[in-house]
Amino acid sequence: MKIGEHTMSRDEANSIPARTWKAPTYEVTAAGKVIGGYTPTGVNNWGRWGENDVLGTTNLITPEIVANAAKLISTGRVISMALPIGTDAPAWSGRPAPQHYFTMTGTDIVASLSSPDDEPSVTFTDDYVTMAMHASTQWDSFAHWALDGVLYNGFWVGNVTAAGSRDLDISQLKESLVGRGVLLDLPRLLGVDFMEPGTLVTPQMLDDAAAKEGVEIRSGDIVIIRTGHVERWYTLETDAEREDWNARVPGVGRDTIAWLHAQDVGALVVDNPGCEVVPNELPMTVPYPFHGGALVDLGLPLGELWSLGAIADACAADGVYEFFVSAPPLNLPGGVGSVISPIAIK
Amino acid sequence: MKIGEHTMSRDEANSIPARTWKAPTYEVTAAGKVIGGYTPTGVNNWGRWGENDVLGTTNLITPEIVANAAKLISTGRVISMALPIGTDAPAWSGRPAPQHYFTMTGTDIVASLSSPDDEPSVTFTDDYVTMAMHASTQWDSFAHWALDGVLYNGFWVGNVTAAGSRDLDISQLKESLVGRGVLLDLPRLLGVDFMEPGTLVTPQMLDDAAAKEGVEIRSGDIVIIRTGHVERWYTLETDAEREDWNARVPGVGRDTIAWLHAQDVGALVVDNPGCEVVPNELPMTVPYPFHGGALVDLGLPLGELWSLGAIADACAADGVYEFFVSAPPLNLPGGVGSVISPIAIK
Amino acid sequence: MKIGEHTMSRDEANSIPARTWKAPTYEVTAAGKVIGGYTPTGVNNWGRWGENDVLGTTNLITPEIVANAAKLISTGRVISMALPIGTDAPAWSGRPAPQHYFTMTGTDIVASLSSPDDEPSVTFTDDYVTMAMHASTQWDSFAHWALDGVLYNGFWVGNVTAAGSRDLDISQLKESLVGRGVLLDLPRLLGVDFMEPGTLVTPQMLDDAAAKEGVEIRSGDIVIIRTGHVERWYTLETDAEREDWNARVPGVGRDTIAWLHAQDVGALVVDNPGCEVVPNELPMTVPYPFHGGALVDLGLPLGELWSLGAIADACAADGVYEFFVSAPPLNLPGGVGSVISPIAIK
Amino acid sequence: MKIGEHTMSRDEANSIPARTWKAPTYEVTAAGKVIGGYTPTGVNNWGRWGENDVLGTTNLITPEIVANAAKLISTGRVISMALPIGTDAPAWSGRPAPQHYFTMTGTDIVASLSSPDDEPSVTFTDDYVTMAMHASTQWDSFAHWALDGVLYNGFWVGNVTAAGSRDLDISQLKESLVGRGVLLDLPRLLGVDFMEPGTLVTPQMLDDAAAKEGVEIRSGDIVIIRTGHVERWYTLETDAEREDWNARVPGVGRDTIAWLHAQDVGALVVDNPGCEVVPNELPMTVPYPFHGGALVDLGLPLGELWSLGAIADACAADGVYEFFVSAPPLNLPGGVGSVISPIAIK
Repeated sequence: MKIGEHTMSRDEANSIPARTWKAPTYEVTAAGKVIGGYTPTGVNNWGRWGENDVLGTTNLITPEIVANAAKLISTGRVISMALPIGTDAPAWSGRPAPQHYFTMTGTDIVASLSSPDDEPSVTFTDDYVTMAMHASTQWDSFAHWALDGVLYNGFWVGNVTAAGSRDLDISQLKESLVGRGVLLDLPRLLGVDFMEPGTLVTPQMLDDAAAKEGVEIRSGDIVIIRTGHVERWYTLETDAEREDWNARVPGVGRDTIAWLHAQDVGALVVDNPGCEVVPNELPMTVPYPFHGGALVDLGLPLGELWSLGAIADACAADGVYEFFVSAPPLNLPGGVGSVISPIAIK
Repeated sequence: MKIGEHTMSRDEANSIPARTWKAPTYEVTAAGKVIGGYTPTGVNNWGRWGENDVLGTTNLITPEIVANAAKLISTGRVISMALPIGTDAPAWSGRPAPQHYFTMTGTDIVASLSSPDDEPSVTFTDDYVTMAMHASTQWDSFAHWALDGVLYNGFWVGNVTAAGSRDLDISQLKESLVGRGVLLDLPRLLGVDFMEPGTLVTPQMLDDAAAKEGVEIRSGDIVIIRTGHVERWYTLETDAEREDWNARVPGVGRDTIAWLHAQDVGALVVDNPGCEVVPNELPMTVPYPFHGGALVDLGLPLGELWSLGAIADACAADGVYEFFVSAPPLNLPGGVGSVISPIAIK
Repeated sequence: MKIGEHTMSRDEANSIPARTWKAPTYEVTAAGKVIGGYTPTGVNNWGRWGENDVLGTTNLITPEIVANAAKLISTGRVISMALPIGTDAPAWSGRPAPQHYFTMTGTDIVASLSSPDDEPSVTFTDDYVTMAMHASTQWDSFAHWALDGVLYNGFWVGNVTAAGSRDLDISQLKESLVGRGVLLDLPRLLGVDFMEPGTLVTPQMLDDAAAKEGVEIRSGDIVIIRTGHVERWYTLETDAEREDWNARVPGVGRDTIAWLHAQDVGALVVDNPGCEVVPNELPMTVPYPFHGGALVDLGLPLGELWSLGAIADACAADGVYEFFVSAPPLNLPGGVGSVISPIAIK
Repeated sequence: MKIGEHTMSRDEANSIPARTWKAPTYEVTAAGKVIGGYTPTGVNNWGRWGENDVLGTTNLITPEIVANAAKLISTGRVISMALPIGTDAPAWSGRPAPQHYFTMTGTDIVASLSSPDDEPSVTFTDDYVTMAMHASTQWDSFAHWALDGVLYNGFWVGNVTAAGSRDLDISQLKESLVGRGVLLDLPRLLGVDFMEPGTLVTPQMLDDAAAKEGVEIRSGDIVIIRTGHVERWYTLETDAEREDWNARVPGVGRDTIAWLHAQDVGALVVDNPGCEVVPNELPMTVPYPFHGGALVDLGLPLGELWSLGAIADACAADGVYEFFVSAPPLNLPGGVGSVISPIAIK
């Protein structure tokens, strides 16, 4: 696979191309830290909150920030930022759609009710879901991305086994990702319904949006960028259009890493499949360079596939682009991501 | 199956006992309402918010209530009330444990990194979950329970098919179940670690707890009852003890329906598998009478299997038993329940 | 939904159109038989092997026929007729592709092997599959299809609940569907690589093929019709072509019901998604009329999505179109279909 | 974990004990072969059928052997050797039970049939299964077991990723595992209903059984050992008894490796969870030594959890312990095991 043709997917095992393997030269400590492997050369937060820190930039979302964010609540209106979970929702083509199934249906009840003098039998319904934790509205944990086999703060990716992630996992953030949300509404800034497919979102655009909206970015903020890409999904009609939707994505790039770090952002959210511009910026030394910079170097959680149409309308209506956000991940020990049901409260 | 031996489970189809079937005598309108079927004879909210209301008592959790609840946030400390999702968590024996699996592991990355001059290949991990929406910490929707084939407000259970619930579903509550939480900590009231298995929680106990805690129940509250039963799970050592944990459950009963209705409670949460006392109260005309009263007659969502040890400790520490709660369900159209990640903020 | 636009799929529950419901007028006995409902008016096998027969035409595949079929084995060459189970295999678009996942990978082993003096830890791999029993090479049981709510021999479809099928299920055939296979190779008869999409396969074509091949159809035979449609899948390149592959299918129609009945065929197999021609023949009073005739009226199992290229080549090479077939379904009690691994032995 | 306490299971990732990691010292060729790693020191088949052989002892099951085995068919009676797939079937406690679910139920059909003049809508049922390929009656492939990270014939276990097994997989055997079966019925030899839990099955017992039955083992045979352990499952009543059923298993041990090799057995089947005696023989240098010897050193497929009561009764009735067996695995590319529906034909 050539870099220019890189894809997040991979073939099934039986078509994995032949290749030799030499063992890596690093060693791994009992604490799960890699010795002699990748270390960041640019902006990063490794060691900033201790050698064994697993919380990354969510350390910046302090209780004080949560308490202050609560003061943003005025009307008490709750606005969902969650996409519907289902087979026709926006999705990256590399993951199968969620399956929602029942072990007891209401129709089973209809067929089991016999006559009034019978004893009651089945009286309830029960449902199950099989789904990717990275499909639908979600958070990426720091165990989701590696550079040369190394995760945030130097933890080894080899401890992310089929049994789950040992050292870094999404459940460690279950009492975080709540605080002050700031919406940067780029289509509104640009006067369009949605950003052009494949457009690079630059730090300048983000600064311009904040300025136009009269909002400032502060330490510990959950910065929420609207591109309109998720909303555009619902205007598509053909499979070819949906393929293109995944192939040309407006999103952020490498320069945004320094922008996020300089302002001590707590978490980043974008209404697209992977935050990052696709095709990735050139020249490319590693694919998805923004993911590596955010998740590995900064330890900054990424929120993807959020549904931002309703909150954007609400912010436009009252002219206030900051609000309270509650978006804790599921308590899924070992998980490398989590589907969520994030809300804004105005 | 005799009523006294009733179980929420059922045998596999091939051991369903032979029985005759006569079609029900009711008819169903195009709006999905049953004509000529069950209607409540006791306290209920049918028609209170309109003939086609699907929100039930969450109508009582108004934006004003949410805004006022936000004022309860002082320190900004976030406390999770979610059980860990996994195979060793408290669970009702009638549902299989969640399965958490990976389509890309970190160990795959280790084995695919060849030599430094190679092109990068797999650099991320990806996980999936298969789980019951009613296992782990969750909400029951009004489509989860029927009386004589009829759901809350007279909707027909026959529109809950294997494709999902048409008229009432959990996603309709995705901008609700946020507001003022009140913890009624019964073990602390009783001076015990946990309530005795099988104990009926009476309205009097609830009033006594509120009085002792100096907290009042208000319209639209999310009332959270702690029995200690979920915490007791972690002290169990044998399968027999875990079976007993499901068979003898401290919980509420029929009298609590009127208590909830009189105070216009918005939603009820208990730290046990099904809110309700098990074995159910005698004499029993239908099994799980509390479920029918709450979900069908009142249209009141039930939160089950919440983890309340940490919030109880926090309330005991500061003496304040009211707090902000954020517990929206997943945006799962057609779902009859939802696993959640509820938080309290003090 | 208009009949001409009928699809085997259905929308998710929340988009099921509003409709009234009146209960059916039939009754159901404790034996699961419908009184006062659908009964066949044309050729059928209801009651032929008893009022409670669940085996249908597999009754015709007697031990003697199996023993005689074994005498067809000469070289002992085993030929698989199973499609590969995977995401890129021929599939009907209404069902999600199989998911194959691991709870222990070999890469986990690589990452857990520490040093030679350590105790051994993980030393094996373990895999799981989630898949439709009707995706990939499979059998339809008699519980897969209903006419006016009635299954083969008058059994009630209402006993096919989310817990499985009570009265008729695929596991009842686990000691059958082994015997004499006869290949009717239509593309070879027609001198083409594959039949034109949407072509109706007529009884005359089947007779012509048998005559040309010098083979006769006998009671209890497993008749295997090759259209080339499954092989054509692998020549397709676009999603649009794959949609068309499902929308225009060469296959059998209503007239073949009488042809199968007249010759007492034991089971029918076609190398396409549903045996039946798509679009279905006009005028159409019920969709998929062949399915109703075969599964409901005759009680004749249908094998779909078989891979017939290799067996066709082998028959062409030796000029012998009869052979031993072993294709028992999985022992899945309550199942309405089964993925299988059928083999021919020459 | 001490060796004496070894278990096939493992804890979830978050309880994996801390440990250091040093990369292995071997290298891997582009053909997937390990250089500088484990090689067998005892009896083995490495290189016997070529350096890149993936078929192991199934090479011994030649077409001639299949053709001769077909001559054993006299009455044509088909006997299933498959356990029912379901939640109450014999199972190893380390794997979750199969889940069988429906996306369309018959009860959905009942609830969607409105009035006779309506157009037909849903008329079929559809089911899915999620299951371990090693639960229920199954084959282990050579990719299921490694010694020091090395599979049969020197292939690297690191090419068994979460996407499947690249070099060795169960689908490669889909045209094999059909041939002459020989039943060695040990309980009948011993005059008991089932072998004592934990009993080691010795080569001498196998020879004695064959002698008493008047049957000889030949090259390419599928040798089927009955212990009665699977049948005993159905007599158990408590969870504790079922735990013990997994903890003390009658089965074969290390000496049987040489016995299988000396007689060029094609495949081995036992009616227990893992062929091998549990607890394993002492002293133990690696856990499950028989698995390593059979799967890694010999390249000999193992059939586990077969249901042998019916075939044993049939053999006792006619006094003939050899028969035709058809047990091809599913065509599951990348699979490390396969659930099957094996049959004997007498």
